[in-house]
Amino acid sequence: MSKTWLNQVKWDEQGLVPTIAQDSQTGEVLMFAWMNREALEKTEKIGEAVYWSRSRRKLWHKGEESGHTQKVLEIRTDCDSDVVLLKIEQTGGIACHTGRRSCFFNKLDQSSWLEAEPVLKDPREIYK
Amino acid sequence: MSKTWLNQVKWDEQGLVPTIAQDSQTGEVLMFAWMNREALEKTEKIGEAVYWSRSRRKLWHKGEESGHTQKVLEIRTDCDSDVVLLKIEQTGGIACHTGRRSCFFNKLDQSSWLEAEPVLKDPREIYK
Repeated sequence: MSKTWLNQVKWDEQGLVPTIAQDSQTGEVLMFAWMNREALEKTEKIGEAVYWSRSRRKLWHKGEESGHTQKVLEIRTDCDSDVVLLKIEQTGGIACHTGRRSCFFNKLDQSSWLEAEPVLKDPREIYK
Repeated sequence: MSKTWLNQVKWDEQGLVPTIAQDSQTGEVLMFAWMNREALEKTEKIGEAVYWSRSRRKLWHKGEESGHTQKVLEIRTDCDSDVVLLKIEQTGGIACHTGRRSCFFNKLDQSSWLEAEPVLKDPREIYK
């Protein structure tokens, strides 16, 4: 019965939902990933973001290698219950595997993508 | 040549990218939708959000019925170039077809989804 809320999410034909991670303080959109039912259940249970890695086909506890875990303060869904929004605190201030704060660093400027956010830490230092 | 930036986006196997619309002022995540290449090209061209409606299988100029268009101030992609983030000004202050400011109004609270945002306008008033 306590899992009714998980049934109310509209999983896609692959059993996934798109998930947006937003900084709870600044409102910055930090990253985008996918969750399956188990990932969302675990996220709620442990209070840290757990995604489904489509490339590795396994649960991915964000920060398991980098230490850049995401403390989840709020879980939301949208009007169709088919997208999840997490409000998080980003450990280490770095969400992106490139060493940037946010994954959304490519900004369109006169028909070119410019890197609009600095690298805060060399990825070789993050993933040793 | 001017369309190189469109080629740099990694469209999925259906030719789509997930797209997040964020209020450029407040940082609120207002909605989530999908774009195909034509939608993104048109968005950039007209400066208003144009999505691909998967259910209706056609281009969807957001606000075409409701008047709640989205002025696009910035277009970003993420580290893998397979997600788009729009920074927008929301005309009428209402992004959701339910009459709420944001589509992300369902908040998880002790294993239940609660509606955490007020309806600002009756949808019957929006879609006459």
